[in-house]
Amino acid sequence: MRLRAELLPREGLIFPDLVLVVDVIRATTTAVAFLEAGAREVWFAPGHDAALALKERGFLVAGESRGLKPPGFDLGNSPFEALSAPVADRRVVMSTTNGTRAAHLAAKSAKRLALMSLWNRRAAAAWAAAHAKEEIAYLAAGKEGGFGLDDAYTLGAGLSLLEGEPDDGALAARAIYERLDPLEALSRSAAARALVEVGLGEDVRAAAELDRSDLVPVLDRIEGPYLVFRHSEA
Amino acid sequence: MRLRAELLPREGLIFPDLVLVVDVIRATTTAVAFLEAGAREVWFAPGHDAALALKERGFLVAGESRGLKPPGFDLGNSPFEALSAPVADRRVVMSTTNGTRAAHLAAKSAKRLALMSLWNRRAAAAWAAAHAKEEIAYLAAGKEGGFGLDDAYTLGAGLSLLEGEPDDGALAARAIYERLDPLEALSRSAAARALVEVGLGEDVRAAAELDRSDLVPVLDRIEGPYLVFRHSEA
Repeated sequence: MRLRAELLPREGLIFPDLVLVVDVIRATTTAVAFLEAGAREVWFAPGHDAALALKERGFLVAGESRGLKPPGFDLGNSPFEALSAPVADRRVVMSTTNGTRAAHLAAKSAKRLALMSLWNRRAAAAWAAAHAKEEIAYLAAGKEGGFGLDDAYTLGAGLSLLEGEPDDGALAARAIYERLDPLEALSRSAAARALVEVGLGEDVRAAAELDRSDLVPVLDRIEGPYLVFRHSEA
Repeated sequence: MRLRAELLPREGLIFPDLVLVVDVIRATTTAVAFLEAGAREVWFAPGHDAALALKERGFLVAGESRGLKPPGFDLGNSPFEALSAPVADRRVVMSTTNGTRAAHLAAKSAKRLALMSLWNRRAAAAWAAAHAKEEIAYLAAGKEGGFGLDDAYTLGAGLSLLEGEPDDGALAARAIYERLDPLEALSRSAAARALVEVGLGEDVRAAAELDRSDLVPVLDRIEGPYLVFRHSEA
């Protein structure tokens, strides 16, 4: 099995098999939180307008711009807030700066796609090992097209559980994971510092928790411009 | 001082101040080796034809395609070979797959530019600290547009000597450096494995040597499509 880590999203990346998309601060952590809170489906929209368009169909609309809840949205992008949101058996649509974009990039080629964070690190690795044929790839969402320490660390945390032939990115991500603590890695990242600046530092501490969820948001289908995730048993 | 590490070359990267370009396997190691062997100048060509065009002006022409010496070239891209090449007081022109391209990308914006490898890691950091005004950036050449463990490790080796405010890439590169040995990091990279396959594994071992040179190839001027490097005292 090839183990691959893409540390930066780039146009033109091809994923021939299975990919786990990571935006640990915060979109993929929050997506897991919505499933934990009982949401039936989490949809990733390609932008804010596309997210808001689902409001009249009964969706709860969540997301952020510069860390904060955009106008007209029901919720921000906080895993804390998501855990206690009134989403039981409802559908949620999310639009964020980095995470939802990276997922759309990966969905162009991947045969199987799921969302991963530190919360579901172990469950996502088990799902990947059960379903991958030739390659398990992790894609870091990064921060506005740049490299994010928080996501690279999370890739390494996942890869540390898997057996196979690691590429250069996977070896690097593992080394980062082995050198740093979760909270140290996340809180030193630019993504975390931007959240602290807008008063959302608690979300960083929450996102640093390892293996607290068994839920894996797996891409179930694509509906027009939306990626539809549901929990899938490994 | 901002400390910045770009782990992948990408079009559109802007370097407002000083940048150190790294292709440890092997272009920036070999460039240092040519200066050690007494070369007066090392020119980086944008491609093989541009390199060969300087042959009639008395240049020694060095470089590689897929690791090997291209037709018509005098030398390959081996630091070993470069150390004993007949270059004393001559000019050398190099054209390689990754390193020379990354240097051209950086030269589009940087105010100061130099070449760095593990060989001149300490000397390059001292030169950077002496000349940077606001930012010391390292740019990894990577491997054919992808991430290279060998270069990321080398960035971390350089950054470990510098004081300042590291960005996410710099924190990651330092963690990689702190976790791995030089020979371990280099020899596990795809760049090294490709060299071993063509019988050039000795170059990997050579490139892993730390701080053996005090010479820093600094961009002296741009002549048409060529970047001209000379040793500069810190």
